[in-house]
Amino acid sequence: MQKQPSLSLRARTAHLLETPLIRYGIIGVILFNAIILGLETSDAVMAVAGPVIYALDTICLAIFIVEIAAKLFAYRLSFFRSGWNLFDFIIVGVALVPAAQSLSVLRALRILRVLRVISATPSLRRVVEGFLSALPGMGSVFMLMSLIFYIGSVMATKLFGAAFPQWFGDLGASAYSLFQIMTLESWSMGIVRPVMEVYPYAWAFFVPFILVTTFAVVNLLVGLIVNSMQDAHHEETNAATDVYRDEVLVRLEAIEKQLSRRD
Amino acid sequence: MQKQPSLSLRARTAHLLETPLIRYGIIGVILFNAIILGLETSDAVMAVAGPVIYALDTICLAIFIVEIAAKLFAYRLSFFRSGWNLFDFIIVGVALVPAAQSLSVLRALRILRVLRVISATPSLRRVVEGFLSALPGMGSVFMLMSLIFYIGSVMATKLFGAAFPQWFGDLGASAYSLFQIMTLESWSMGIVRPVMEVYPYAWAFFVPFILVTTFAVVNLLVGLIVNSMQDAHHEETNAATDVYRDEVLVRLEAIEKQLSRRD
Amino acid sequence: MQKQPSLSLRARTAHLLETPLIRYGIIGVILFNAIILGLETSDAVMAVAGPVIYALDTICLAIFIVEIAAKLFAYRLSFFRSGWNLFDFIIVGVALVPAAQSLSVLRALRILRVLRVISATPSLRRVVEGFLSALPGMGSVFMLMSLIFYIGSVMATKLFGAAFPQWFGDLGASAYSLFQIMTLESWSMGIVRPVMEVYPYAWAFFVPFILVTTFAVVNLLVGLIVNSMQDAHHEETNAATDVYRDEVLVRLEAIEKQLSRRD
Amino acid sequence: MQKQPSLSLRARTAHLLETPLIRYGIIGVILFNAIILGLETSDAVMAVAGPVIYALDTICLAIFIVEIAAKLFAYRLSFFRSGWNLFDFIIVGVALVPAAQSLSVLRALRILRVLRVISATPSLRRVVEGFLSALPGMGSVFMLMSLIFYIGSVMATKLFGAAFPQWFGDLGASAYSLFQIMTLESWSMGIVRPVMEVYPYAWAFFVPFILVTTFAVVNLLVGLIVNSMQDAHHEETNAATDVYRDEVLVRLEAIEKQLSRRD
Repeated sequence: MQKQPSLSLRARTAHLLETPLIRYGIIGVILFNAIILGLETSDAVMAVAGPVIYALDTICLAIFIVEIAAKLFAYRLSFFRSGWNLFDFIIVGVALVPAAQSLSVLRALRILRVLRVISATPSLRRVVEGFLSALPGMGSVFMLMSLIFYIGSVMATKLFGAAFPQWFGDLGASAYSLFQIMTLESWSMGIVRPVMEVYPYAWAFFVPFILVTTFAVVNLLVGLIVNSMQDAHHEETNAATDVYRDEVLVRLEAIEKQLSRRD
Repeated sequence: MQKQPSLSLRARTAHLLETPLIRYGIIGVILFNAIILGLETSDAVMAVAGPVIYALDTICLAIFIVEIAAKLFAYRLSFFRSGWNLFDFIIVGVALVPAAQSLSVLRALRILRVLRVISATPSLRRVVEGFLSALPGMGSVFMLMSLIFYIGSVMATKLFGAAFPQWFGDLGASAYSLFQIMTLESWSMGIVRPVMEVYPYAWAFFVPFILVTTFAVVNLLVGLIVNSMQDAHHEETNAATDVYRDEVLVRLEAIEKQLSRRD
Repeated sequence: MQKQPSLSLRARTAHLLETPLIRYGIIGVILFNAIILGLETSDAVMAVAGPVIYALDTICLAIFIVEIAAKLFAYRLSFFRSGWNLFDFIIVGVALVPAAQSLSVLRALRILRVLRVISATPSLRRVVEGFLSALPGMGSVFMLMSLIFYIGSVMATKLFGAAFPQWFGDLGASAYSLFQIMTLESWSMGIVRPVMEVYPYAWAFFVPFILVTTFAVVNLLVGLIVNSMQDAHHEETNAATDVYRDEVLVRLEAIEKQLSRRD
Repeated sequence: MQKQPSLSLRARTAHLLETPLIRYGIIGVILFNAIILGLETSDAVMAVAGPVIYALDTICLAIFIVEIAAKLFAYRLSFFRSGWNLFDFIIVGVALVPAAQSLSVLRALRILRVLRVISATPSLRRVVEGFLSALPGMGSVFMLMSLIFYIGSVMATKLFGAAFPQWFGDLGASAYSLFQIMTLESWSMGIVRPVMEVYPYAWAFFVPFILVTTFAVVNLLVGLIVNSMQDAHHEETNAATDVYRDEVLVRLEAIEKQLSRRD
């Protein structure tokens, strides 16, 4: 096996994968696969054309596997350096888990393959990257929220668990109920008023919980807005201002030079 | 048929349509029509004065048709270049569809004619144009949301459709239910808790769905705020700053010239 | 009756009303009155000390009337030039309407007197004035919202009024139901799902209504934020920047003068 | 007892408390205690290992008491100057109240000890300090909200208390119901529609209440955003701008000096 042809084949594969035909073709296959997977939910369609639908889905999957295999061949291990490639690899890989035929959950996960349209479309990719870039700045607030939820769950389980096992029976049930209360869904009529019939002072736990979590969420939002604004403002003004500032300083220097030259 | 008189008549019509009397007159007719259409909803009023109400409505419609015909005559095809004219044309045209007398939906659509008050009032027009100008920047986020909703609907239909056909029976029902869940309306007490009695891990689908869609909506909001702020900031500071900057640069140039003239 | 003493008495009254003792005294009476009116809601307290409570309330009212009479005497018609004075006058006046003893609504309105604490406390006054100053800028959006609500009410009454008279029976009922839907309270489980059982396409009216009103509210919010930010930014930067700019321009002028003087 | 050794022991204790080993050790104990307190909520775990869990909890508590005693010894009264130390002192102290064994509420409060992870982690500390620093600026709005709630509660109790004692029976019940209405939870279907069956004009109280409180909350949010933005903007631009401004002014001065020196 000679090295030169192999390298050349790799380069040619990499080049081929970047051609518009292949790129738009893959997006087309993803969207076609999305429609196929959508049709699979309709009993009427499946009764008429079930085998065709399954066959088309398998063909789409085969195309994705060939594409990823080609990329793996072309880029070798550097393929995994891009988060988006890893994302594609996992999403397509899920469909190859053998149990996928029996477990309805794993079969339902196959629709996640449609998310590949994000990794294949630069504009959607940028939006998602923008979302993700906001996450690290929210790390401390997330830790604080987890802490509040953990403490709230332990307290709610200890205080109300015995009387209301369906809502506060264990830590998991309490955390779910507190999440519902944080979203303000039926918090009073559905949960706190019934609880207050047994423990009249229950509001002293739930109302502060709502105020604290809402305040934390609001601060998170404010932080997001201020950060985005900072970035946007920074970029925009710097470009315009720097040109002007440089011009002023250059002219001042020129004047000084002219003056000192004459001395 | 001579060209000169016709052209002159067109110019005179165009001029007439722009006079304050006609402009405010049309707004008056729109508001009067709004009251008439409101009175039509009252059985008591219709029992007493039904024929009069219908007659007045027909007169208003006739005035709108004459106005649009006059505009069409005055501006010919350039009439359709303005989105607002097109908007008026369609809204008035709906009332002329013959089936309008039989179908209650088409009759109800006649009230949309009141929206003409927007196209006739510059300040409302500007507000709506401001709203619409924000839409293109939100295109990618909308596409992402549609993607999330499509994937969510397919998954929800596959996972919960068999046990809860009233909520997740087909793609449309699932999309509606997920929209309800995104607005946080009865999401837990109304939908997720009943679902969790059959599928105890259903929260693992719905809670992330809520977090992702809420986060996307928040980012949309943040984007809107930052964009508006950018535009506002840009306009305001530029006016003030540019005058000052120009003055500084002009003076520096003058000083340099004076210095070099003396060399 | 001589003019001089009267004028002097007016001036002395005006001066007296501005002394800290009177100002804080009045705030004290307002807060004491608030407690009295709060105690009036307790049957237990009223059974024991009903007549005392009523007497104390009458005394507080008498003090307010004397204060306003004194202000009217001191400032004459210019009293009514301040919106806050008019506000005090109306709020206290409500208690003097004779029917106030029989109608529970008018008696309940007496608690509005506590709002005088706003007009008497400069910091609260400023907050409320800040709120009110934001209103004019929201005028166009309010007009647009009224338009959307009117059109929505007429359409909902015509489309769903016959089948659901309790929600959409007349324009008022529809407007209230649409307001509830705009706040997202039980919009789906409580209203739209039941309606969809009769009119399966009802979502095509309600979902766009929710999207449009939410979008309008969001734009209102964005406008508020941008405006406040503009004002804040304007004030802050101008102070600092103007000083610097003036200094630069003054120095540039001085340099130019020096240069031309030597020519 | 000699002064020198004692002082030296105090200094050594203070130094020891600041070593990374002790700092991270304490955070470890807090997190371990959090897990222990979480396990206490599980009946299954307590049946198997109850005494061990209680013993481990007591050991954690003992470590906290030793730590705080050491800090008190090292810093004496200046220990209480830091709000965070006071916070630790109270949170640990709660566990020592003797009744803690009998009252379930006080036992539930022991989980608050986990909040010590905030005072022990600088990044979480900063987030909480950021939250708290936003509070004073919101003081006036809070006072206004309290006023609106007090007035609303008195009015609701007087108007609807007789017919709906479960919601508006006394001031406390009314305040809770109004808080629920402010969060928009079941406000219409759950409360206002039933009330309107008895008092058809009840909406004239509740709808303005919702509009006013929502508007106040929105203004609070806008104020928060504008303040954070101001601070962020101030810090960022000043650093960059000041350097440039100083340079311009220094150069202008130099030019002036050169010119006048030659005169």
